[in-house]
Amino acid sequence: MTEDPPFSPALLPAGFVDLLTPDARTEAEGVTTLMGVFASHGYNRVRPPLMEFEETLLAGSGAALAEQSFRVMDPDSRRMMVLRPDITPQIARMAATRLSGLPRPLRLSYAGPCVVVMPAAAEESGRQIMQAGIELIGPDVPEADAEVVTVAAQALERLGVPGVSFDLTMPPFVPALLEEAGIAPSARQALLRALDRKDAAAVAELGGALSETLIALLRAAGPAAQAVSLLNQITLPPKARAILQRLIDAVEAVHAQRPDLRLTVDPVEFRGWKYHTGVCVTVFAVGRAEELGRGGRYLCNDNEPACGLTFRPDVLFRMIPAAQPLPCVYLMPGADSATAASLRAKGYATLAALPAANGQHTDHSAEAVRLGCSHVLAGATCTELA
Amino acid sequence: MTEDPPFSPALLPAGFVDLLTPDARTEAEGVTTLMGVFASHGYNRVRPPLMEFEETLLAGSGAALAEQSFRVMDPDSRRMMVLRPDITPQIARMAATRLSGLPRPLRLSYAGPCVVVMPAAAEESGRQIMQAGIELIGPDVPEADAEVVTVAAQALERLGVPGVSFDLTMPPFVPALLEEAGIAPSARQALLRALDRKDAAAVAELGGALSETLIALLRAAGPAAQAVSLLNQITLPPKARAILQRLIDAVEAVHAQRPDLRLTVDPVEFRGWKYHTGVCVTVFAVGRAEELGRGGRYLCNDNEPACGLTFRPDVLFRMIPAAQPLPCVYLMPGADSATAASLRAKGYATLAALPAANGQHTDHSAEAVRLGCSHVLAGATCTELA
Repeated sequence: MTEDPPFSPALLPAGFVDLLTPDARTEAEGVTTLMGVFASHGYNRVRPPLMEFEETLLAGSGAALAEQSFRVMDPDSRRMMVLRPDITPQIARMAATRLSGLPRPLRLSYAGPCVVVMPAAAEESGRQIMQAGIELIGPDVPEADAEVVTVAAQALERLGVPGVSFDLTMPPFVPALLEEAGIAPSARQALLRALDRKDAAAVAELGGALSETLIALLRAAGPAAQAVSLLNQITLPPKARAILQRLIDAVEAVHAQRPDLRLTVDPVEFRGWKYHTGVCVTVFAVGRAEELGRGGRYLCNDNEPACGLTFRPDVLFRMIPAAQPLPCVYLMPGADSATAASLRAKGYATLAALPAANGQHTDHSAEAVRLGCSHVLAGATCTELA
Repeated sequence: MTEDPPFSPALLPAGFVDLLTPDARTEAEGVTTLMGVFASHGYNRVRPPLMEFEETLLAGSGAALAEQSFRVMDPDSRRMMVLRPDITPQIARMAATRLSGLPRPLRLSYAGPCVVVMPAAAEESGRQIMQAGIELIGPDVPEADAEVVTVAAQALERLGVPGVSFDLTMPPFVPALLEEAGIAPSARQALLRALDRKDAAAVAELGGALSETLIALLRAAGPAAQAVSLLNQITLPPKARAILQRLIDAVEAVHAQRPDLRLTVDPVEFRGWKYHTGVCVTVFAVGRAEELGRGGRYLCNDNEPACGLTFRPDVLFRMIPAAQPLPCVYLMPGADSATAASLRAKGYATLAALPAANGQHTDHSAEAVRLGCSHVLAGATCTELA
């Protein structure tokens, strides 16, 4: 136990930050761009609340989030409420209740902050996590998985994020294969750990009759076209083959729409997922370890199939050019208000002169410079500062 | 104590709601509009976090908010954290710490959700409260109070909110007057209650030597030009006169910039304010009881003067036309992707056909109608549905 640091009035809890200009604007404008792309593909915006009852938010797909959630007592109902750690389970609740009567496929989008108790090791972005994403509810087909990926790709292109890569996985595949192949439950844990470490030597040692297959699966991971070709050559028991085939079908459905997308496949990846039950996707930018987003297939609270993808705008906005500051015009006392309005309409910010509290004379030209203005408006005349 | 209602999986805690389309979009687009107007007047966007340490958020101007705040233990620091009930005290903290070195006047804007333990009686909008506002830090002059009002008025005009009215008050005035006039502390409470009820008979009875003055002040409340004229005729002791004069100066500074604004003045209003120390403003729409926003003058955590105004987008968006849905085009299988992209660029939403999970034939024309599409894109040909 370490000693508490001295308390500073500027101190924020770990994982919470003040975003300043231009970062706060870059993020807000980036979210607007994302939501615009989502809307253009028919995803309708919803806004679930920051807090819900524990019994509803952590039911169904949200159960996996219990450990990540701050709880408070609701003095009104005397029930426990949860500060949402994730928005997707809220969409799964809405789809199963208030929106159950809307036609399927139901396409929904959302953006807003979430709070987690402690950040996952890999998540450097703190405990207040901004999310912006889409959910496609109803159809359980590879084309739906693919739609989510291609819409996400288009959103990243519109933002100008360079070098994007999508990694597709099928978390239920390896556990199903081990079970179908009759690997003893007692042996599975060590084998899963070896697979998780991509430790081929340990897999060969622990895999028994399945060793060769598992090594081949490990080796198949990589760029999608090559991975699919290698996976098609591996002999698998029928249930495991059917699960893997769905991953391959999703990869091919993405490629049919967007042959130019950078796709990778990792068939043995099975960890780090919360409520996902099928094809999963993680979005990376080449050369960066942080995820830009993730998603996958899951079941809504009434077991209706759904898939989605959620971006992390707080990660994304660090990868795009910062929002440019507006050029500023200093309004001298008595500046013409119609001219000032027309400057604002042209994209300038106008900063009104304010008198000093003590009635002293103000050197307005010096003020304009001090406040970073490039222009001064006196009367109806706008002059560029030297 | 009433019995708990039966628990429904769709139930949300009182004061928390799911916003659906178009409301969620109307609100988001409304916030974007507000922030754009703020930026055009030099207000730079910041985004303080949803949670802070109790010791920082409820220090300084935030102390008045302690009862309204949900608290949770931070397992990392073992200190109490607060879910913010209001953003202005966060701005006051930032101005006094991290932003203390920036030139003044410091103009900041912000938008985001807040949560209160229980809504104030007058606040019908629940416990999750969206805020969007501006703070003008540094100058303690009537022109600064007026700038906040006129920028707010412009933002409401841009949103298209009809019949807006600003009510200006000076909460420190009445308490200062009672003290200066030597009203015994024991008599003040009953007199303040009578003033609060605008009960002229009780004021006459309880006001002693101050009765005539207080009745005149009560009668002066109303449209600004008339109120200022009446207030100028009232004889007041010097300190109270100076405080009231500042309210009159602020009214005149607003009128100098915007003679067309609907302004009212209530000189005896003193309640319902949190951390405010000077001229306060409440924004109404004619014929509606709900406040659209409020603000006023306060001190930052290091006692630097500041004033600001915060809108309630969740109230505002009910007063403006709902965001219009995008017209939808159903993309038949094999629809030309370049044509689809150009339709999206023109403001259409394109809904991709998805195959049925069971491999059954899909009647795509019926699907297009069922999903509310007005057009169908087959190949590169876009057809309007009959």
